Parts: sequence; structure tokens; C-alpha cells
Amino acid sequence: MITPQPISGFPEWLPEEKIVEQRLLEIIRTNFERYGFSPIETSAVERREVLIAKGGNDKEIYGLTRMAAEEGDESKEIALHFDLTVPLARFVAQNYGKLSFPFRRSQIQKVWRGERPQSGRYREFYQCDIDVIGDGELSLFTDAEIPSIIYGIFLAMNIGPFVIRINNRKILQGYLESIGISNDERVHVLRIIDKLERFGVKRVMNELTIKGITEEKAKKLVEFVSLDYTNSEILDMLAEMPLNETFETGTRELKTVIQYMNVLNVPEEYYRICVGIARGLDYYTGTIYETVLVNHPGIGSICSGGRYDDLASYFCERKLPGVGISIGLTRLFPRLVQAGILQIGPATTAPVLVTSLDQTCMEEYLRIATELRKQMINTEVYFESKKLGAQLKYANRKGFALAIIAGSNEFDNQTLKIKNLKTGEEIIVSRNSVTEEVIKQISTLQKHNLWT
Amino acid sequence: MITPQPISGFPEWLPEEKIVEQRLLEIIRTNFERYGFSPIETSAVERREVLIAKGGNDKEIYGLTRMAAEEGDESKEIALHFDLTVPLARFVAQNYGKLSFPFRRSQIQKVWRGERPQSGRYREFYQCDIDVIGDGELSLFTDAEIPSIIYGIFLAMNIGPFVIRINNRKILQGYLESIGISNDERVHVLRIIDKLERFGVKRVMNELTIKGITEEKAKKLVEFVSLDYTNSEILDMLAEMPLNETFETGTRELKTVIQYMNVLNVPEEYYRICVGIARGLDYYTGTIYETVLVNHPGIGSICSGGRYDDLASYFCERKLPGVGISIGLTRLFPRLVQAGILQIGPATTAPVLVTSLDQTCMEEYLRIATELRKQMINTEVYFESKKLGAQLKYANRKGFALAIIAGSNEFDNQTLKIKNLKTGEEIIVSRNSVTEEVIKQISTLQKHNLWT
Repeated sequence: MITPQPISGFPEWLPEEKIVEQRLLEIIRTNFERYGFSPIETSAVERREVLIAKGGNDKEIYGLTRMAAEEGDESKEIALHFDLTVPLARFVAQNYGKLSFPFRRSQIQKVWRGERPQSGRYREFYQCDIDVIGDGELSLFTDAEIPSIIYGIFLAMNIGPFVIRINNRKILQGYLESIGISNDERVHVLRIIDKLERFGVKRVMNELTIKGITEEKAKKLVEFVSLDYTNSEILDMLAEMPLNETFETGTRELKTVIQYMNVLNVPEEYYRICVGIARGLDYYTGTIYETVLVNHPGIGSICSGGRYDDLASYFCERKLPGVGISIGLTRLFPRLVQAGILQIGPATTAPVLVTSLDQTCMEEYLRIATELRKQMINTEVYFESKKLGAQLKYANRKGFALAIIAGSNEFDNQTLKIKNLKTGEEIIVSRNSVTEEVIKQISTLQKHNLWT
Repeated sequence: MITPQPISGFPEWLPEEKIVEQRLLEIIRTNFERYGFSPIETSAVERREVLIAKGGNDKEIYGLTRMAAEEGDESKEIALHFDLTVPLARFVAQNYGKLSFPFRRSQIQKVWRGERPQSGRYREFYQCDIDVIGDGELSLFTDAEIPSIIYGIFLAMNIGPFVIRINNRKILQGYLESIGISNDERVHVLRIIDKLERFGVKRVMNELTIKGITEEKAKKLVEFVSLDYTNSEILDMLAEMPLNETFETGTRELKTVIQYMNVLNVPEEYYRICVGIARGLDYYTGTIYETVLVNHPGIGSICSGGRYDDLASYFCERKLPGVGISIGLTRLFPRLVQAGILQIGPATTAPVLVTSLDQTCMEEYLRIATELRKQMINTEVYFESKKLGAQLKYANRKGFALAIIAGSNEFDNQTLKIKNLKTGEEIIVSRNSVTEEVIKQISTLQKHNLWT
């Protein structure tokens, strides 16, 4: 006898939790498709050489070995993917001739990382990615469309106010050039600047000077990345300080992106120009996105991404610029629940339980269920021979909205009872109007947010 | 530079293929939920001891090792699951107190097996499972409900005529007892009988006698399992040959299952009693299901399952009887395509491409797209600065249904063109009626099976 136990870092949900996660995944998927992103799914497994081509950290990779593998077995050379970007690059290079460009792909899959699990870090988790990959070039309009997708998704999730932070990497880079920070210093400086929000001005200033940045430069830089004005004020300020070509290009691009975001109806209060965000080091080259929950900044960015110059330089000769975002749903989901932003609901997607007062009426119960299912109403029939009290306890525990109750007398009279388990109300309806009444009651419950 | 190549046994689909697979997965999921099955998702990883508890074949299991793992690292003891039944057993034992019984769970996930890949065998594939798990006992009505779910799924998939083969293991077992085949011989005999369809009578007779079964017994057995009559004729015949208690119980159970399948409207031509099917050796103890495509028997069973006495005997003391089925979608899907039963369609789920004749009109293009998206119509805007011909080529290659075409003249006149890419027809509509016209055209295309 083996006592089953959770495995650290590999989260699992109960049905009532999984139903909520599934709803979020569905919101993400339909919004991705609404903008013409086509789904792909790559195998969970890549060749080891593919995963480490771009410096994938060996420590984070789970290699696969057949338990009874012979020496030299090829399976030793395969490993689980740790993100969906490397697989995308490999997939695009491998299938280049079969894809249409710009290639708009969505990909929602589990990824695995062999990290030491910490709070909120998992070894297995969902990533939900979209990217648009150009063949040689890619229009800047694409960068403007992405925030409108982010906006649509988190609005539909109904998780409270959020802000899409937006920047253009060239602005930050141009500024660094203008105050005389060298390319060698840049990596360190950006890494420190990325932590401004978490560490505060004092610590960041201190760390910058430790890295050999003069106090004057550090002060200028911190002031610049802390610019706190309205979006149009910042755009105006940037336009008035043409420091160098990189800076000007970044400003022009950002302005265009903001202009078309407005056309796409992303409301002003849902985005904010933050000239300090860099998202990692040298990966992104243009537009950069982060998304934070206004009332829960501690959760960190819930959706990030940006523009890059070349997706697949390790796998093919062609230049493939792209822009994309990623939602790490598995990290986000339990935090939304813990923070009370998301409610866990019923352990079933079915609103209706047809109880079985009398096993000899089972044919009738099945007919009622069939009628409801024909109307797309998810319905369960309780088959076990238990007292009504036990059946209703089961119904309440699982969170059904309605229980249908009838025995042979009721079927003789062609009337039966619908018990509303959310309000406690019971009504008697004629056999012929059961479906109609169920539809009505579910619709009322939905209006009052008592059923989704 | 690494040249990316497919990994044998790990299938991947192009977007146009993935879209079809996704549609099938969606049909399966919604039908599972229609009958009140609640989704769960277990981690892809189990402890090794859990996977091999019930004699899981070591050779088929992919163990996980962190690439840079230290000696003694726990991750060496974890491995990818090879089916969804062992994880279900572990999950139910682990969460017993938090689940409501009968526990109706659906689970649609990838599984991995380190087998040598052969035609139609994969090392990574989707399984789509439902099971109902009772706590101590489980009503036989559950067994009758399963075929109606199978029927609904394959009808919705529109993959031609199919037959659900149904049996009760006790009938076969009772028959074996009645002709004096011992429990020791049973395993071999069942394994051979399971191959009757593939090998034919002569070879099966031969193999049975090699195993020491007398020719008389072998002949009787082959005759019995080949019974080829209508469902009601077979039920009558079985009822008239009360060989022993096991046989009678099996017959009675089968009769009840068939009776309630009829109540659930599974048409007579979609199921068939086959007293010979056993599905493996000693796992199933009652009702047994297989499903075959009438015109493509070579594909084998596309959905199988049955009733078992005890799900989780290795993980908990409680008796947990269950009944369930599994659809191996990844094996089925390419075969359906190869056989021409399923057509591969567009490489996008969006019916509409808004072309961009004139980059200065981009705001207008985005507004049209926003209007369509508000009506739940998946829409892509072509952003690149290319000639219309190139844009329409892109549209045709990806398989869009409609292209919207307009330049500054058209917007000045408030009229624009909708090109139906399936029929070649072009119409001019007023700017205000674009959405209405698009909805009309999509609906017409759907009626003629030119859009899904």
C-alpha cells in the first residue's frame, strides 16, 4: 500500500478549482482567436541541443530517460520544454515553408522547470502565449494590437482594475547612451533599474554606484525612469528631448503604438507609459509590455512581453522579427484565489441534478435529463439508491443550482418539484414545462451571479 | 546553427491540423460535461512508485532527471504518467475526503510512453477519459449512461457510421467456467480470443489447442464468441442458457444496461452485443465497451472501457468500484484524416481578413475589425505594407472566408468591398452595413459547409 502525497512544485486542483482555471484558459483562448491567432501545440519534449541553443539554463531542464533504457538510447537526448518561445522558434524554422507570414500563433501549454520550488514558483505550469512572427519585417501596428488583446482578456476575467505598462526599449537605451553609460555597463544597470519598484530609490542608487556609475549619472537615470505623468504628458516630454537617434526612434514608435491603441479602444486608465521597464536584458528590442493588478501589485506582472528582432537565429538563416506576450496562468490563478479576487464555485459544470427518489422511475429521470441535455443544459442523474436527504446533501456539496425531485406519484400526476438549491425555493411544475422552467431559473440565477 | 528536425514518436500538427484536433477535443469535453462530469487535471508527473504500483511496465515509463541534478536529488524519483487511470487512482485516494461520490471526473491530457514508435503509435498522445467512481458501490445505471455519451461524441464528430460493441465480462467468464476452462488457463485463453477478429477462426483454434485447450472446448468457445445475431436475439439466447451464477448475473446486468441505453436513445444500429470482447485481461469485471468505425475497421477501437471492481487498491483501503472509457485522440485523429473521414480546413479560426490597401487608412481598418470582434467574429487585420495581390494570396493560403477591401476613396464614399474567398463573389456594401453583411455571408457559408 502506497500513501499518495503531493509532489512539491507540481500543483493540482480539485474539480471546483479546475473548473475556474478552465474558464480562465477558455477566456484566454477565445480572445487570442478573436484577433486571428492560430493555435499550435508543440510536443512537450525537445532535443536537448535545441533547448540549450540560446543558453537555456541546464539546471532548469528536466531530461527524459526511459526507465529501462539501454546505453546510448536516443531518449537521453530529449528533455521537457521550459517555455514556449524556444519551441516556437524551432517550430517556425522547421516548418517555415508551410507557414504563412506574418505567422500569428497562439500556444497554451504546460511547461516544466526543475527549479527549487518556492512560494508561487512551480515546476509545472501553464503558459499562454501569442506571438506574431514576420518574415524579414513586421509592421509596428502589430505592437499596438497586443495591448488591446491584453485588455480584453483581463476585462473578461473580471479580476479588478489593472494597468498595462508600456515602454519602448530604444527610449531607455537612448537615454543610457545620452548620459554616457557604456554598452558594457548597460546589462548591470538595467538589471538594477528593473528592481526600482521593489527596492526603492535609495537602494537602487547605492547599487548603481557600487557598479561604478557616478552619483550624478545614477541620479539622472533614477529621475528619468521614475517619470510620473499622464501618458500624453510623457509623450510630449520625450518628444521635446531628442537626445539621439535611438531615443527618437523609440519615442516615435511608442507614439504610434499609443495612437493605435486608442483607436482600438484601450481606455486611458488601463495603460501607462513607464520609461523604466526593460523586462530582462537584451531580449526585447522595441515595445515592452507588463501588466499589473492595481490593487495587488505584489502579484507582480501578470502578462508580459514585447518586440524582438530575431526569433530563430539559432535555427535558421532568415531574420524573423516578432512581438508577443505570455500569461503564466498557473502562477496567477492561485494568487487570484488567495487574494479573494476569484471565487471558487461549484465542483460541477452542471447546473441540474435529477434526483432519484424511486429507482423504478429511472426511465423517467433519464428522459428528463435527455430533454435538458438537448437544450445544452449540463445535467447529472443521481443513480445510487440513497435517501433523498443524502442526495440533496450530495447536490449541495457539489454546488448544483437546481435539483429535480419526483417519485412515482409525481409522475402519475405529471407534476414534479424543482428545488432551487441557491435560494432554497421549491416549486411544482407540470412534467411538460420542466425544461422551460429550468432554463428560466438558470437564467435568473445567472443574472444574480449565482451561476456562471 | 542547429537544423530542427521532428522527434520520432512525438507528433506535431500545423495550425490547420491543430484547429481540427482542437475542435474534436472541444466536442469531447462539452459532451463529457453535458453528462455532469467534472474536469480534473493531474500533474504530468507521478512518483515512480505510484506508476509501477500496479505493474506499470518500466520500459514504457519516462523518468525525469534535472539536467544539472546533484546526486540523490528527489527529481530522479519522478516520471511522466503513461495513462490517466493510475493518476486518477492516486488522486482519488489522496483527495478522498474532499471529493463527492459517486465521483464523476473527466480528464483530457497528454500521456507519455517510451515505446519504440511504430505506425500509429506515439510516445506522446492525448487521452480523453471519463470515469465514475463509487464509494463502496456504484449503480449499474451508470454503465448504461456511458454508451449514450460515446454515441453523442462520435455523432457530433461526424465521422461516419460507428458501432459501440458491448459485453459483460461475467458472461464470458461464466461460459469459460461452464466448459471447464480453469482460472489458470483463462488469461491465455482470453488473450487469444481477443484476437479472433484479427487472426480468424483457424489461427485462434490452433493457438488455443497449443495452450492445451481440447479441440472440443476450443470449438465451443469460438462458436460462442462468434454469435452473430441481433441484440435482442442474443439477449434471448443468453437468458435461455443459464449456465451458472456468474453467467446469469452477467446476462441480467447486460440486459439492464441495454434497456436503459434504449431509454437514453442510443439507436439500435449504433450498438451491438459481442459476447467475445474482453479488453485486456483481468482489469474489467463487468460491462465492457469498444467502439469501431463501420467503414474503417482497420483503425481498431476508437473508444474503449468498462466496469472494474476496485480503482485504487494500491493507494487506499476503501473499495472504489468504477466504470469509465478512454478515447485515444492522438492515435485516432491522423487516421481519420488519412482515411479522408476528416477534412483539414483553414489555418485560422478567423473567417475575416481586413486587408490594408492604404496604410493611411489603418484607423479605419482597426475600427472595422473592432466592430466585427464585438459580434464575436474572429477577425485579423493585415498590417504589412504589401500589394493587394500579396494580401489576397495570404488570405487564400490561410483559408479565410471573407476579405474586406477598401482604400481612402472607398472610405470617402462610405462604401467598401467584401470579397467572398470561397465563392469568388465580390459585393460593395455601405460602411454601416459591413458587420451585418459579414454575419450574413458567414451564415450562408456555414449552411453550405464552406465554413465551420
